[in-house]
Formats: sequence, structure tokens, C-alpha cells
Amino acid sequence: MILYGHWRSLATYRVRVALNLKGIKAQVREVNLLTKEHLEPAYRAINPQGLLPALDDGKGQVLFQSLAIIEYLNDIQPAPPLLPSDSRARARVRALAQVIAADAHPLIVPRVRDYLERQLGLDEAARMNWIKTFALPALETIELNLAAEPSAGAFCVGDSPTMADILLASHVIGVSFFKLDLKAFPLVRGVYAVCSALPAFAEAYPLRQPGAPASL
Amino acid sequence: MILYGHWRSLATYRVRVALNLKGIKAQVREVNLLTKEHLEPAYRAINPQGLLPALDDGKGQVLFQSLAIIEYLNDIQPAPPLLPSDSRARARVRALAQVIAADAHPLIVPRVRDYLERQLGLDEAARMNWIKTFALPALETIELNLAAEPSAGAFCVGDSPTMADILLASHVIGVSFFKLDLKAFPLVRGVYAVCSALPAFAEAYPLRQPGAPASL
Repeated sequence: MILYGHWRSLATYRVRVALNLKGIKAQVREVNLLTKEHLEPAYRAINPQGLLPALDDGKGQVLFQSLAIIEYLNDIQPAPPLLPSDSRARARVRALAQVIAADAHPLIVPRVRDYLERQLGLDEAARMNWIKTFALPALETIELNLAAEPSAGAFCVGDSPTMADILLASHVIGVSFFKLDLKAFPLVRGVYAVCSALPAFAEAYPLRQPGAPASL
Repeated sequence: MILYGHWRSLATYRVRVALNLKGIKAQVREVNLLTKEHLEPAYRAINPQGLLPALDDGKGQVLFQSLAIIEYLNDIQPAPPLLPSDSRARARVRALAQVIAADAHPLIVPRVRDYLERQLGLDEAARMNWIKTFALPALETIELNLAAEPSAGAFCVGDSPTMADILLASHVIGVSFFKLDLKAFPLVRGVYAVCSALPAFAEAYPLRQPGAPASL
């Protein structure tokens, strides 16, 4: 398998974690988000959407969209499971993942921040207000959800990492890059602490990837 | 089951279609998006995220997030399937669904449009530019994807409606509300035409719900 990604892409981070948890080795091809290489024809020929990540399993159109890729990896190699076997628990994992993937992350990605800066002329303070407004409610939602139904283990749902934990970790890393305060979300921070201590998460950490700076 | 929703909520539309396709009856409780009833304590007590839809199956925490609910309905009642049985085809359906749910829809929802208008003071033309910029690329991605791998049937993937078609339909309806031109997306329009002729989709159409105006 070939994983097209970039150290700075949090959606790629999610797939790296899933691959690590599954013990699936993928060859990594860097597509530089910072120089907008993902929007060039060469990468568009691979993933027409021009977004990261994409996974080429050699069997046809590349796989794209991080959650779809994670579900696919879980389908083709069920162990260890990234979704619980109980259908309600599975719905909860998917809902928590969507809170990040659909309601928070898309509002703070580079193309949106670029538009705010270049098209709308927002200064840094105004852009930070935007990021706070749209990035933090997702963590509040997850905090409330975890408080309402405490997990049997250290993770969002159950006692092993699921897709919900992967998405939670990606968003905690994302908002940390913007130095937002996470004090109000102790349960979220607890899950993140446990996840980030696992090699599958630690080795996928953005700043540990080739090409990444030592710190932000 | 109780479905909390509103005629104007496209995420609720998706769940209505899925329920209709499955032949599952749900009691509908209206939560008025236009008067921001979804942000009031009464609804927050049901769905702490304060977004629509939510589905109460009487078995614990409400189900939330439209894609998670659709997957759940498909899990508890597999026929007719809203996801293909082949894992690659399933990944493709989920990816197409995420293109809408994660990369397009979240950028044009009321809370974002409100922020653009009230916090950033954007006039209607500037808000329409925003909507075009972030709503249309998703349809372009789907158009390219359908062109690259023509379906055996009239739908996005295979010859029966899947979650991808439901999301496609929700977004076509959404951009139509803003009177955006869909000429450049003939394959998308073709799928939408077939879907909207099915009773499951037609009966879920926003303007056919209680409380909706005759036209926008």
C-alpha cells in the first residue's frame, strides 16, 4: 500500500494511527501541503479531490477520505477492532468521530484559514477567534458525551482505542498547534494522554514525521 | 423511535431518507432551526451538541450525527443495504458521503453563515462567494469520481441507493436553495434525478415536511 500524506495533515495522521494499530505497513509518499503540492496536477491525477490523505492499495481508484479509509482498514483486517462489535456502541464511536471530522476540523483547515486571511482580510486575532469558535465546541460535545456515559476503560468507548479516539487525538493535536486552552476538557485530555502514550499514536505524531520541524 | 429534526435541516433530511428506504417508522419531533430552538436547554438535554438530527431509540443516550445514525440503521436492519457488501465499494460510498458531510456541508450551515454575517459583517454577495467556494468543489469531486468509475446502475455505486446517494441528494438540495448553477455536474444531476423520483427521497424532501413553506 502507498499512503500519500504530509506531516502537517491531521487527516493523514488519523490514517497513520489506524495503520499502526492494525500493524499494516504502508509506503509513504510525501505531498507537501505547505507548498500546495496537493493542488498540482500530479497529485490530482491520483486523488482528484486534491486533499490528503489517499491510500493506494493497487486495486483500482485510490481510497480517499480519512474516515472511509479507517473503516476500510477495519473491514479488510478486523483485528484489533477500531469499532466496537455492539451496534449502539459503534454508532457512538462514529458519532464522536463525526463531531470532529464534520463539525470542527473542516472549519480550521488551511484552505479555510487562507480564505479568511486572503479573501476576507482577517488579521490573526480575528482568525484565532474563528478557530476558537468552531474548533472548541466539538471538544465540549465529546466531554459531555464522555461524562454522560463513562467508559469502562481509558478510551472514549470501551477499553481499547477506536476510531473515536483517533479523531479525538487528531483534533487535540490540531487545537494544540493553535495553542488553545484545553483546561475545560479533562476527560478529553485524559483520553488523549492514554492514546499518546501508545506507540501507534506516538509514532504517528505529526512532528515525528519526515520533513517536520522539531517544534511549531 | 423518535426523530428530532426540522424541515430545513439537511442532515435530518438524510436520516428521513434512510428511515424511508428501510421502511422504519419514526415519530417526528420538530425542533425549530429558524428560531434556534436547537440551542435551547430543552433540546440540549436531549442532544448536548445542540445540532439536528437526533434519534432516540429508547435504549440509552440518543443517537446523533446523521452518518452515524444511517450506519446504525443499516446495522440493525441490513435490508435494503445502504452500503455495498464489497469492502472497496463500501469505502467508496463512505468517501463520497464524507466529501459532502465533512468537506462541504459544514462550511455552509446556519451557524457559519450567521458568523459570516454578524461577526464578520459580510454582505450577501460576499456570503454567496463563500458558499460557492466551499459548496461546489464537493460536487466536482463526486462528478470526477463517477466519471472515473461509471456505476453499473443509476446510482453513485451499484444499482440501488446507498449512503452516498443520500448525501449527494442532501447537498444538491442545499446548493439549490442558494440557487447555485449545477450545469457543470451532469452525472451528479443524473443521480439526483433518479433519487428524487423515488418515494423514499421525495417524501423526505424538506419543503414537503410539516411547517415548511410552499417554496423558498
